[in-house]
Amino acid sequence: MEELDYLAPLLPDGAADNSRRKVVLDTSLFVNPDVRTVIGRTPTEALDAFLTLASGITVLEFYMPPSIFEELMHFVDREMLSGDLLLLLHQKPPKKHELKLPGYFLYELIEDMRERVNKGLRAAEKAVRSAENNKPDEIIQDLRRKYREALREGIIDSKEDVDLLLLALELDAVLITADQGLIKWAEKMGIQWLFPEKFRDYLISAAEKSAALRNEG
Amino acid sequence: MEELDYLAPLLPDGAADNSRRKVVLDTSLFVNPDVRTVIGRTPTEALDAFLTLASGITVLEFYMPPSIFEELMHFVDREMLSGDLLLLLHQKPPKKHELKLPGYFLYELIEDMRERVNKGLRAAEKAVRSAENNKPDEIIQDLRRKYREALREGIIDSKEDVDLLLLALELDAVLITADQGLIKWAEKMGIQWLFPEKFRDYLISAAEKSAALRNEG
Repeated sequence: MEELDYLAPLLPDGAADNSRRKVVLDTSLFVNPDVRTVIGRTPTEALDAFLTLASGITVLEFYMPPSIFEELMHFVDREMLSGDLLLLLHQKPPKKHELKLPGYFLYELIEDMRERVNKGLRAAEKAVRSAENNKPDEIIQDLRRKYREALREGIIDSKEDVDLLLLALELDAVLITADQGLIKWAEKMGIQWLFPEKFRDYLISAAEKSAALRNEG
Repeated sequence: MEELDYLAPLLPDGAADNSRRKVVLDTSLFVNPDVRTVIGRTPTEALDAFLTLASGITVLEFYMPPSIFEELMHFVDREMLSGDLLLLLHQKPPKKHELKLPGYFLYELIEDMRERVNKGLRAAEKAVRSAENNKPDEIIQDLRRKYREALREGIIDSKEDVDLLLLALELDAVLITADQGLIKWAEKMGIQWLFPEKFRDYLISAAEKSAALRNEG
């Protein structure tokens, strides 16, 4: 256990039921191949491994916005999962009409977007200039990559992203995702997050703490 | 006065000092030629005409975020203005660290931006395809226009825009601007706004009400 001590701040202190730590999970943990492999070969295996570990954890509660849960279900073979365990992954949408964000946040978002929009235009102009003597198909492929980098990466760009951030904010939860844009904006919003590569260690640490508490009790 | 009655809801009811209605003004009122001409030939003339009318108005208070005021000063010849009258245009930044926005707003913004980003990419791809047999300079000019339409118009895209919206929200003020993007987002935030073409009528109506109150008192 010694080597996992750095995860202690993300686990609750006491033994009382109400001291459970809430955790919000993103699809990317089970889908993104760079991260998933920590826990399973395929999305289905990764989710199944998580559910099996989660079934022994009493110190954490796992949440997912329904939009993210739905996304995840596109990637897994539900038939292969250990039935009821899926209920350990609580689906909850954020209270988007009640939650409030500081006005300051809007400035950050708009300023960030403004720079990105300019970068996107520069990429497009460059593509047009190089299209004179080159094959447009190749140029467009390159443009798409650069445009995507400029306007999509490192930013919250979908309602699913907003769901994850607002749910983590509402529940004062730890957010676990492999999406750098989400991590960046979680930090701006004061949301705790965990390196996705540490997901498995975190679950094991939580399972051990849960077992220790059971033995005490 | 009869014909200006439709402006009554934007004026305060009573005679008490604390019933003054707050109004937030955008640079566009004095700079945008489509709108400015209602009140003056040049930005300086428009601002001067406003200040002269404002000096007779006791039922309204006029505000501008400092960022917008600074922007406006680039367009006017300060020497030509009737000195102290400029003080009638109160400079106040919004309390951006205290003001709160509903989480719902973030969904709207991200969804809107997402569509725009896609539209911008389609415009860029089209430009590349047509660049094979055409002059790139012309294509790029056309691209800039379309890209601007997709990613800049009808959206809040600068910190000055955010300043105006948050200040109007904070003061529960009427927002007067010629910027369609600001009007659209003001509506989403529950901020009252006035058609910019009616700016002069509004001032005259307020001046008449102020005079009537003086005569009563």
